[in-house]
Amino acid sequence: MNYKLIVRFIGLLLLVEGSAMLVAMVVSLLTGGSDFPALVLSALACGVIGLVAFFTTMKVEKSISKKEGYLIVTLVWAVFSLFGSLPYLLSGTIHGMANAFFETMSGFTTTGASVVDNIESFPKGILFWRAMTHWLGGMGIVVLALSILPSYGGGLMMYDAESPGPVVERLSPHIYQTARIVWLVYLFFTVLETLLLCLGGMSLFDSICHSFATMATGGFSTRQASIAYWSSPYIQYVLTFFMIIAGTNFTLLYFALKGKFFKLYRDEEFRYYLLFILGFTILIFSGLLITTSKPAEQAFRNSLFTVVSIITTTGFVSVDYLQWTPVLYMLVFALFFFGGSAGSTGGGVKIVRVVMVLKNSYYELRRIIHPHAVIPVRFNKRAVEARIVNNVLAFFMFYILIFFFSSVLFMIFEPDMITSMGAVATCLGNIGPGLGTVGPAFTFSPVNDLGKWFLSFLMMLGRLELFTVLVIFSPSFWRE
Amino acid sequence: MNYKLIVRFIGLLLLVEGSAMLVAMVVSLLTGGSDFPALVLSALACGVIGLVAFFTTMKVEKSISKKEGYLIVTLVWAVFSLFGSLPYLLSGTIHGMANAFFETMSGFTTTGASVVDNIESFPKGILFWRAMTHWLGGMGIVVLALSILPSYGGGLMMYDAESPGPVVERLSPHIYQTARIVWLVYLFFTVLETLLLCLGGMSLFDSICHSFATMATGGFSTRQASIAYWSSPYIQYVLTFFMIIAGTNFTLLYFALKGKFFKLYRDEEFRYYLLFILGFTILIFSGLLITTSKPAEQAFRNSLFTVVSIITTTGFVSVDYLQWTPVLYMLVFALFFFGGSAGSTGGGVKIVRVVMVLKNSYYELRRIIHPHAVIPVRFNKRAVEARIVNNVLAFFMFYILIFFFSSVLFMIFEPDMITSMGAVATCLGNIGPGLGTVGPAFTFSPVNDLGKWFLSFLMMLGRLELFTVLVIFSPSFWRE
Repeated sequence: MNYKLIVRFIGLLLLVEGSAMLVAMVVSLLTGGSDFPALVLSALACGVIGLVAFFTTMKVEKSISKKEGYLIVTLVWAVFSLFGSLPYLLSGTIHGMANAFFETMSGFTTTGASVVDNIESFPKGILFWRAMTHWLGGMGIVVLALSILPSYGGGLMMYDAESPGPVVERLSPHIYQTARIVWLVYLFFTVLETLLLCLGGMSLFDSICHSFATMATGGFSTRQASIAYWSSPYIQYVLTFFMIIAGTNFTLLYFALKGKFFKLYRDEEFRYYLLFILGFTILIFSGLLITTSKPAEQAFRNSLFTVVSIITTTGFVSVDYLQWTPVLYMLVFALFFFGGSAGSTGGGVKIVRVVMVLKNSYYELRRIIHPHAVIPVRFNKRAVEARIVNNVLAFFMFYILIFFFSSVLFMIFEPDMITSMGAVATCLGNIGPGLGTVGPAFTFSPVNDLGKWFLSFLMMLGRLELFTVLVIFSPSFWRE
Repeated sequence: MNYKLIVRFIGLLLLVEGSAMLVAMVVSLLTGGSDFPALVLSALACGVIGLVAFFTTMKVEKSISKKEGYLIVTLVWAVFSLFGSLPYLLSGTIHGMANAFFETMSGFTTTGASVVDNIESFPKGILFWRAMTHWLGGMGIVVLALSILPSYGGGLMMYDAESPGPVVERLSPHIYQTARIVWLVYLFFTVLETLLLCLGGMSLFDSICHSFATMATGGFSTRQASIAYWSSPYIQYVLTFFMIIAGTNFTLLYFALKGKFFKLYRDEEFRYYLLFILGFTILIFSGLLITTSKPAEQAFRNSLFTVVSIITTTGFVSVDYLQWTPVLYMLVFALFFFGGSAGSTGGGVKIVRVVMVLKNSYYELRRIIHPHAVIPVRFNKRAVEARIVNNVLAFFMFYILIFFFSSVLFMIFEPDMITSMGAVATCLGNIGPGLGTVGPAFTFSPVNDLGKWFLSFLMMLGRLELFTVLVIFSPSFWRE
């Protein structure tokens, strides 16, 4: 293992993180907040340690092996969250390492689960940093690094280890070029959303923070009540639209921006993504019409917003779905196991995996009736390699097993079974709100410290799509 | 589709069922119960309709296709349960078709979930019939038929469609011979258990009924309190031992009876089966020692009994596990998704599938690190065909999906999420007790009629290991 290189790369990334803190510092300056010293000190800490790590490892073999890629990516996420907690701790806005780490990991992994019960009292610089953790993590920290740093060998290895979905797509033979393109697309939609939110009467500051949180499918809001604070249908529909965008494969968005819209509707994952959104919205909308007396438009808006917020793993809250009749919030809970598209900023299982698993199960019935026929899973009109199907199935099994046994384990901290399942599922899927006492109307502050560390780990595990973290724990990784 | 043959085969099986009712009638005569007329009439109904079906289909093509096999097996289980409810209805012990059908399906599928709140007031003939439904269904209705009826072409097709586990094992080139051997092994252990229970002071009648329920991994008891009625450690350990036997592959038991014990411990599934029992017992036993002040022997016995009762899908209750601390009963709930060995009378997912799924997931980590290596799942020292691994994974996915979406659907009848998940999991896994208000201390009587039909269907789906029933619902089954 080339540890020097790992240290060097992490050092470089700390410099990136420190620079991002400087941006938050500027916001603090402009708004005259009390958080200026905390942000300066945090940026300084990142800068100094980053520079030390960088300059002590000048002479190093620059190619990265597959294993090193996995290790770097996992470590980067942990170290990034560790240093990212400094602004909270130094400003005194969040007390205790477990709380600050949870909030930061929740930010970078775009989970959006929060331990903060008084968010409206936070100074603007810190709020901006909180929104930035989403935005920086959304497209991937390593992808961010690849898009702005000079070339390294093995960029693909790391890109592969961090990027969501079972197959890595490239827009260019150079992975750096690909990283740059998706970042530009990301930036474009973030700016567009900010403008549209401002037009709806949201303040510029809130608009930027919410655009960061939307495009990263994060879910942190600047208000304790989340999106329920803005009752304006316009704002809720704008957010819904951009959540859908953020849950779409960015490769497709790039082609759409270039006018090639046919790429969108020819893509099977995108079609299923819209189909699932439509299907669940209709189910929940019908359920709300039957069981409540809300006006139809509001019931529709609440259904659509909640379905999109959960399936894209954003986690914004415009209504407390736990107030609905149990069948309806169980449908919402079902969406905890879907997730955005591959190559989007969304977390969770991902639509392409869900569809492949469903197809493979359905095809198995045909295979039973026709035992001598070869019936492969088809996706986008092509037969999917058995190796990939098996990988997807293994992923799903790990996901279910980790979900179930983590829920059992978490019941040591939180005896209520539903709360436990909700907390684990929402953190593993990088969603935000859960069930029971970690539902949309509550925060994670009552969870004890050990529980918060555990959930933070689950967020990272989920964000890196299990395997990247799990391989590091497998004995064969360390052999030879 | 050769419908005549299907009718003929079902007719034959009704004759078998009618004969079984005559046995219960004899018990009724001997004990002087009021249930004599009900049992005679039920037997008569089976006999008349069976004979009509048989004699109107004398001229028929006798070979059975794969598809016909699936259809026959599914229909047989439904028709058997329909006629099997007659004794309850005619004797007035159970009111309403939904209740009687639920109790009978629960018997034949060896689920052991009951709608009866006053079992001690039942006449002995009916109690015996109830225990017999377990015993007849335990080894499979079709297997029973194959072992006593003259040869039919396509017996293997039906054997395959009904028998538990991903691969069908044969002890003899003739499937009829195989069916006879396993039935003899089954009979031997049932008699042995009856003797041992009698030695412990249980009445002969109770001993026979409980041996039927144990060896079939059923779970019906003659007492409302189930096994908790007998506080004798001897009786509880004897039951535990025979539950373990019943959850073992009967092929292995056959070899063990012939003195070839090495076949047992050389079998990977058997080793994992014992390992899971041991592991969960130790976990729960430790948990009980920490959280309760029960004497160690009692805590151990309760842990072992509960683990064995649930993993083998028997469902006997010696203690109400819902009184334990939440983490511990969640561990019990985890066992709902294990099940007995392939080729045993146990239901659920089956140990071999659980192990294959876990191995495949674990091996995937190695495949990721060594992408060019071919790393198949190995079982019993042999590489398992990819086709079978995929079948097992598809089975597991169906199981999880059916569990989850049935739980959502069932919340229409039963809004409590935990009760709903418990009811669905216990019926699909053919276990017996669930969670919440269908926990070990309660019965299913409060569930409404539609809910009971739904759960009855899930029992059949689980007993026939999903695919046999699901293929019938797939469009390609009915094509051409």
